[in-house]
Amino acid sequence: TKRYSITILPGDGIGPETISVAKDVLKLIGALEGIEFGFQEMPMGGSALDLTGVPLPDETLSAAKQSDAVLLGAIGGYKWDNNPKHLKPETGLLQLREGLKVFANLRPATVLSQLVDSSTLKKEVAEGVDLMVIRELTGGIYFGKPRGIGTNENGEEIGFNTEVYASYEIDRIARVGFETARKRNKKLCSVDKANVLEASMFWRNRVTAIASEYPDVELSHMYVDNAAMQLVRNPKQFDTIVTNNIFGDILSDEASMITGSIGMLPSASLGASGPGLFEPIHGSAPDIAGQDKANPLATILSVAMLLKYGLGEENAAKRIENAVLDTLDKGFRTGDIYSAGKKLVGCKEMGEEVLKSV
Amino acid sequence: TKRYSITILPGDGIGPETISVAKDVLKLIGALEGIEFGFQEMPMGGSALDLTGVPLPDETLSAAKQSDAVLLGAIGGYKWDNNPKHLKPETGLLQLREGLKVFANLRPATVLSQLVDSSTLKKEVAEGVDLMVIRELTGGIYFGKPRGIGTNENGEEIGFNTEVYASYEIDRIARVGFETARKRNKKLCSVDKANVLEASMFWRNRVTAIASEYPDVELSHMYVDNAAMQLVRNPKQFDTIVTNNIFGDILSDEASMITGSIGMLPSASLGASGPGLFEPIHGSAPDIAGQDKANPLATILSVAMLLKYGLGEENAAKRIENAVLDTLDKGFRTGDIYSAGKKLVGCKEMGEEVLKSV
Ligand SMILES: CC(C)[C@H](C(=O)O)[C@@H](O)C(=O)O
Ligand SMILES: CC(C)[C@H](C(=O)O)[C@@H](O)C(=O)O
Repeated sequence: TKRYSITILPGDGIGPETISVAKDVLKLIGALEGIEFGFQEMPMGGSALDLTGVPLPDETLSAAKQSDAVLLGAIGGYKWDNNPKHLKPETGLLQLREGLKVFANLRPATVLSQLVDSSTLKKEVAEGVDLMVIRELTGGIYFGKPRGIGTNENGEEIGFNTEVYASYEIDRIARVGFETARKRNKKLCSVDKANVLEASMFWRNRVTAIASEYPDVELSHMYVDNAAMQLVRNPKQFDTIVTNNIFGDILSDEASMITGSIGMLPSASLGASGPGLFEPIHGSAPDIAGQDKANPLATILSVAMLLKYGLGEENAAKRIENAVLDTLDKGFRTGDIYSAGKKLVGCKEMGEEVLKSV
Repeated sequence: TKRYSITILPGDGIGPETISVAKDVLKLIGALEGIEFGFQEMPMGGSALDLTGVPLPDETLSAAKQSDAVLLGAIGGYKWDNNPKHLKPETGLLQLREGLKVFANLRPATVLSQLVDSSTLKKEVAEGVDLMVIRELTGGIYFGKPRGIGTNENGEEIGFNTEVYASYEIDRIARVGFETARKRNKKLCSVDKANVLEASMFWRNRVTAIASEYPDVELSHMYVDNAAMQLVRNPKQFDTIVTNNIFGDILSDEASMITGSIGMLPSASLGASGPGLFEPIHGSAPDIAGQDKANPLATILSVAMLLKYGLGEENAAKRIENAVLDTLDKGFRTGDIYSAGKKLVGCKEMGEEVLKSV
């Protein structure tokens, strides 16, 4: 039997609830597919802060590094919102991404036919949307130096950050973009602000240079302001989008809301080697935490991405995806995706239904 | 009689067409309201590049500075897209904003009841949206130094920009935000990325400090990724938004697309003193230029903003706004906002109809 060690980071808010359900799904699929999973649960985010005083304890990072894949619930909460930067749950997440060197963040935004009515977009606009945002995750303004709050030469107080990309950082994320597009509809749209920013002009130059390695993929470029518009106007025009860390943060969230089912969307963060990081794109939703109301499907679908992209277990991944679709077909809905005539269930019951359908 | 001198920058693409119509509206309103306008037309953008070799000739900037208000059509086009940075039409626009010191960009996004069906959002989501984005326009990553394409200490090629805000820059745009909210529904939402960026933490601190001057305005803070989602999920939650240059660029375009009638939306850019800059938010639309297809209403409504915010002629502004609404009520539509049963007209005819309704 194949054996994999999985580091599990339940995190904060609804994280522990959705993780518990997703872990059961992973166990079952392992039993059915003859895969053995070893689990190690570690603290991370706000709960790690409360427990250890830091948002990403060294033990958590080294456990994560030594495992085959990392599954994260969600982090953050009002309680820690006013902490200084180095004591924010979010800082722990950034340290984890950096520590695991997961530079490529894959964020699918798919409108499932079962949930098309949850979108605030008109049915004919939302129907059939199936796009993938590839966001650069360990560079750009998130990590660039110099950064800080200080004083300028006129003695005025200033806040500053640096947007910076080296050629190798752009080249490798561009390749992930092209490879991903190649497996989809062979259309890659690179998003930048090259009419204003040098960092973007350089980005565009490098992406264009890498394109020669992928003659079968059609490359286009779009300014970020236009991309933010086009996602609302006609999201179906997009297949694969590749963009920098901050633009990817904004556009992938916008795209996910367009699907209307943010409680459904998983993500994968991958490096050149080593374990990938898999997490739902939704947050920790502190207001519904502990009430068995959370939608566990995004975490369950993150498990599918973990199997597919993290472990190469495509079969097991497909079984989970199908189980989720079956469960939706049977009419089960958590509150966030509920509509009249469907069966309202809690987090646990939704998990049990998925288990039945695997 | 009152006299005002107006610098007119028709620019590129559909700019000259919509400007010609808007100028007629301004002349008529002047005649009716007893205001005399002196017009000076100057080259700017791509057409200035072709004529003089630079996108913002010195003569254009100094004429603009000496006038009471500046009306701009649109700039840019495929022809100049691959020019080096200093020879791009966009660079001329940035130089104009900087030269006029218009640090506050006001971008209303209003869903008119007559046009609610043009939105890709469901009617119940789009109906009644009436928000104002206040975008900082002369600072941040658009203008921050150092910037460029160079080499880092490892000898790798890099592209870099600097996001930087001094306290006075944040304070003055925050005040514009609070003043604007005060005249609207007294709700100001400041958008930043303070969970990651020091520039944003500083921004949030300053905005919070300025809030004490405006106890009657309710201030909230939102992360930019969440704002991009919330604009799609429930745009009606917003009244006034204040944000930095790059986030404002992205969010105001997203907001405008949510209204479904980007051909309808004006903008005003204001400084502490001196002439303001007024322009439609749409681009130069080179593919329909010269075909009498453009929607002139955004430029006409920019004239209304010019009268209201630039010259304090609120009466004249109101007359123009009402004339536009009347024209829509009568069923006249350009192609971009056309729907079955309405009267399809070109740019000129739309202008004539507005003139009749003034
Ligand atoms: C929590 C925050 C630091 C994070 C980010 O900005 O990357 C989140 O918004 C995300 O997109 O995963
Ligand atoms: C043309 C471009 C430089 C400009 C900007 O980014 O400011 C435009 O997108 C705008 O929003 O006015």
